[in-house]
Amino acid sequence: MDSQKVLLWRYATKRFDKSKKIPPDKCSELLDSLRFAPSSFGLQPWKFVVVSDEKTKQELCQVAFGQSQVVDCSHLVVLCARTNLDADYVRRYTRSIADARRVPLDSLSLYEDIMIKAMGSMSDTERISWAQKQVYLALGFLLLSAAQMGIDACPMEGFDSKGVDKVLGLNDANLMSTVLCALGYRAEDDAYSSLKKVRFAESDLFKFV
Amino acid sequence: MDSQKVLLWRYATKRFDKSKKIPPDKCSELLDSLRFAPSSFGLQPWKFVVVSDEKTKQELCQVAFGQSQVVDCSHLVVLCARTNLDADYVRRYTRSIADARRVPLDSLSLYEDIMIKAMGSMSDTERISWAQKQVYLALGFLLLSAAQMGIDACPMEGFDSKGVDKVLGLNDANLMSTVLCALGYRAEDDAYSSLKKVRFAESDLFKFV
Repeated sequence: MDSQKVLLWRYATKRFDKSKKIPPDKCSELLDSLRFAPSSFGLQPWKFVVVSDEKTKQELCQVAFGQSQVVDCSHLVVLCARTNLDADYVRRYTRSIADARRVPLDSLSLYEDIMIKAMGSMSDTERISWAQKQVYLALGFLLLSAAQMGIDACPMEGFDSKGVDKVLGLNDANLMSTVLCALGYRAEDDAYSSLKKVRFAESDLFKFV
Repeated sequence: MDSQKVLLWRYATKRFDKSKKIPPDKCSELLDSLRFAPSSFGLQPWKFVVVSDEKTKQELCQVAFGQSQVVDCSHLVVLCARTNLDADYVRRYTRSIADARRVPLDSLSLYEDIMIKAMGSMSDTERISWAQKQVYLALGFLLLSAAQMGIDACPMEGFDSKGVDKVLGLNDANLMSTVLCALGYRAEDDAYSSLKKVRFAESDLFKFV
């Protein structure tokens, strides 16, 4: 499919075919889009909980207003923001750079200082909001990659974040659920799949200077 | 290129080859990824200002801490959140659905009410933060699409948002600059292009349930 066809094929899937599961190799390829998604400073202020266990899906469904996508999908990804973006976290990241690129840790001290200052300059609320924005960028990578692989998806903001955190024990892991993404294959009778995509006129969406 | 190669080819380009411009047909294809990016409720709480004018780029460079990507890139996209997500905006969206899908406006009144309530339930700060998250999702679509087309990109948070708003007259248009994305082609001597991509271990990034 060319790129525009992929963009038009994708839609927020309301009814998944419960019998169809994403094969492990495809799942792994799809999750690479999250792993290699970019983030500010490269800090990866996120973690992705991939739920395929039926009992856990049922529990999550109850804190997601009973939306059937949560249980009927193949895999539910809970995209989480990290709540512990402190100097220790930054230092752990700097060490991972030094390891990966085989450079002395000292050579990264200026960059480390900049990141520590940037994290420290935000209030807790601002820092979580900043991390959540990065999570949405990663969600973009996941959704577009899924469409290109012929995998259906439904991004979901309608859920009780504290409820999801509790079911998955996220707070103890310094995580906060930010957005859900159900992944799988559309049911043949999902009426939403045939609806015309609605977008404002190009002149409303773009300005050229 | 397979999908992982694309993900690894992409990097935040620091030095662009100023002589290489994105051809109009490629630019148009790339902007489709923004136009058709998904957003919560489909509300498209955004506008994208695409800057290729050299004088404007110079002015924007001054409010982006002099970062050379702003002037050396082919096109600079200023991704903006809308600040006027009120009942009128929602109604305009509902009309666009009715027009596109040829359904009576009345049939959308429940959906319209839900959206108006959702927008009204947030404080101004929360609503802007919500819109900005959607903008980051669209940025994800733009960055991945660019990489797949062999177009380089540099997403940028380091700029004076109020300064950018002033240069482009965004406030009068009910817009707020949220993130920049320089697009074009990497310079051969950009040392960053050969650096190993750094990511935390998969066990740090993913949890499987």
